[in-house]
Order: sequence, then structure tokens, then C-alpha cells
Amino acid sequence: MKVYIEPIGRLINEFTRLPGVGQKTAQRFAYKIINMTDEEAKNFANAIISAKTDVHYCKKCGNYSEGDICDICKKRSSETVCVVKEPKDVIAIEKLNEFDGVYHVLHGTISPMDGVGPNDIKIKELLERIAEGTVKEVILATNPDVEGEATAMYISSLIKPLGIKVSRLAHGIPIGTDLEYADEMTLSRAFIDRKTL
Amino acid sequence: MKVYIEPIGRLINEFTRLPGVGQKTAQRFAYKIINMTDEEAKNFANAIISAKTDVHYCKKCGNYSEGDICDICKKRSSETVCVVKEPKDVIAIEKLNEFDGVYHVLHGTISPMDGVGPNDIKIKELLERIAEGTVKEVILATNPDVEGEATAMYISSLIKPLGIKVSRLAHGIPIGTDLEYADEMTLSRAFIDRKTL
Repeated sequence: MKVYIEPIGRLINEFTRLPGVGQKTAQRFAYKIINMTDEEAKNFANAIISAKTDVHYCKKCGNYSEGDICDICKKRSSETVCVVKEPKDVIAIEKLNEFDGVYHVLHGTISPMDGVGPNDIKIKELLERIAEGTVKEVILATNPDVEGEATAMYISSLIKPLGIKVSRLAHGIPIGTDLEYADEMTLSRAFIDRKTL
Repeated sequence: MKVYIEPIGRLINEFTRLPGVGQKTAQRFAYKIINMTDEEAKNFANAIISAKTDVHYCKKCGNYSEGDICDICKKRSSETVCVVKEPKDVIAIEKLNEFDGVYHVLHGTISPMDGVGPNDIKIKELLERIAEGTVKEVILATNPDVEGEATAMYISSLIKPLGIKVSRLAHGIPIGTDLEYADEMTLSRAFIDRKTL
């Protein structure tokens, strides 16, 4: 005899697709939905549908956008372009409220192991934007892992000859961390990139 | 400037309604949805709608049911009735695969502090089922908290005079726990309810 009736079992199953959600958590989520009003559940379902139908990618920078061109590209100067791997990296940087340039989302990083080459990510589009002539600095903000570093080096080798300033986010010991807890890679990078006071 | 575009912000908001889900987790869930195929997202949304429209309560026992009468009430003998607070308690007991009687879901427990009296939960319905004459034992499986205990005592005082066997789930030290870690209430109950070997 099955423990859940079909609609509940199905909903639990759907919730387990979410990252970090196991059977038990999915069950709690499902109970929460069942105890919502019809109106609330409908809004929830509609928000999911809408996130698929109303979220597009900006034709200029590849960021999430409701229209063809995102609000950031529309309103800001494109003198400084910050290159990131994914749209969610844009959100992380936007939360700082410090960067006032535009972005370029690569939608991936070069990873020969996974069969992702330079032509599979939006590097060509970045070069086209630079060719328009307004870009003065490119900040490479890909992740500090092997693929992110390789991608940054590759892009840098393409852009530098064009006479454009290319920079990379600083690596080092995170604020608030004790030296003894920093991993070796980070600590050694912090030594190499040490600042003269 | 807002960080999220509207459809994403709305979905994140909806996810934070789920128990134990904060802003950060909701954001991860939203990204997962955005990266699903249209088909997958639609299935997800439909499962939510369906959980509201296709889940009813069994007219006999108050458990979740797809039809008027739940599968448990349809197939099992009603000699033993296990009384629980909520439908999810039924699922917890069903998972054991040991109890083969039927259930009665109270949909709450007596709690004067919250203004919930005996007439606000499904005690009358339980008495009506007993009046039909097939019930031989009632197992009171409400939670071992103040409200659960009070409800169990109250129901017991109503049913016992009818000559029906009334029992309550055993309290004691959980299997696998060290004595020193058991809380005082539990330990003292374990002493009171000690079994003669």
C-alpha cells in the first residue's frame, strides 16, 4: 500500500528536484502547499510559470531581462564591462551596490574536460561589444577555479592587444578569516599578490 | 535600483513562504526553476495546483483522500481506530507498515489558550463512528505535549464508559538514546510506565 495519495506524492517528487531538498523537506513543503489557500497556491504556481515565460536574456549582455535589453544596459555607461560566468553572478555583484558599469555574461567557462571550448561561450559577443569602441576597461570576474582562471587568461590574451585595460578581481584572505583557517592556495595567492603599504 | 527583475523576485518571494526557506535558499530554488525546461516547470506548477484541487479529506476519517472515502477506510477493518491530530501523522504511522486498522484525524487538539475547544475538532465525528458499533479499540496517538495529553484524556473520558478499550501510545526513552541524554519528563515517564519482565 502506498503511503501518499497520488497528488501529494507527485508534489513531493517535484520538490525533491530542488537543490538540497530531500524526501523529508519535500514532504514539509508539500504540507505547506496543501494548507495554503487556493489563491496562494495558484500564485505560487503562476510565479513558477512566469519565471520561465517572462525571464529572457538581454541581447546585449546576456543577463536576465524582462525585455530585449536589460535595465542595466539601458541605463549605464558601457565604459567598464564586468565579465561573469552566469547571470546569478550579476545579482551577487549588484547586491554590493558598488559597481556602476555594465556586465557581460559568458554563460559558461572554457572547460575542455566537459567539451566546452571558447566558441561555446559568449566570447565572440564580448569582442563585438568591444569593437563598438566605447569600452575602456574589462574586469574579468569569473570564478577563481581552474576553468574560471583559464577563461580569464584566454579573454585577456584577446583583449589586451586592443589596448584596453584588463583587470581581474583580487584574490586573498577573506575578511574576518583567521590566517590559520585559510586554505593553502588562497594563502599563497595572498602572498604573491601582497600590497605595498 | 532593484537587484532582481520582477518575475525572479516574485518567485523568490513565493519560495520564502516554505518552512525553513530563507532568501538565499529561495534564490537557489528560483535559479533551478529558471534553468528547467518549460515542460519541467509546467509539471512543477501543475503539481502545486493539483495538490490543492485533487486532495480532499476522507468523509469518514478526515485523512487526505483523492475521492470521498480514502483507500484506508475502504479496505481495512474498522475494529481498531487510531486517533491522530493531523493527516501527516497518518503518513508517519503508515510508513511503519505495522498498524492495520483505520484512522481518525481530529484536525487539531484541544487548546484553550488558542481558543480551540472540544467542538472545534472532530471529536463528535469520532463518537458517531463508534456509535455504528464496529469499533473495539481506540488508540489515542495525539502528540505527547500538553494539548495532546489533554485531548487524549478528554476523549478517553467520553469513550471508556461505552465499554470500548482505550489505549495511548507508550512514552519512554527513545531507542538508541543514552539515559543521560533523555530529558527529565521522558525519563520520569519511563519510570512510571516501567514494564514488569
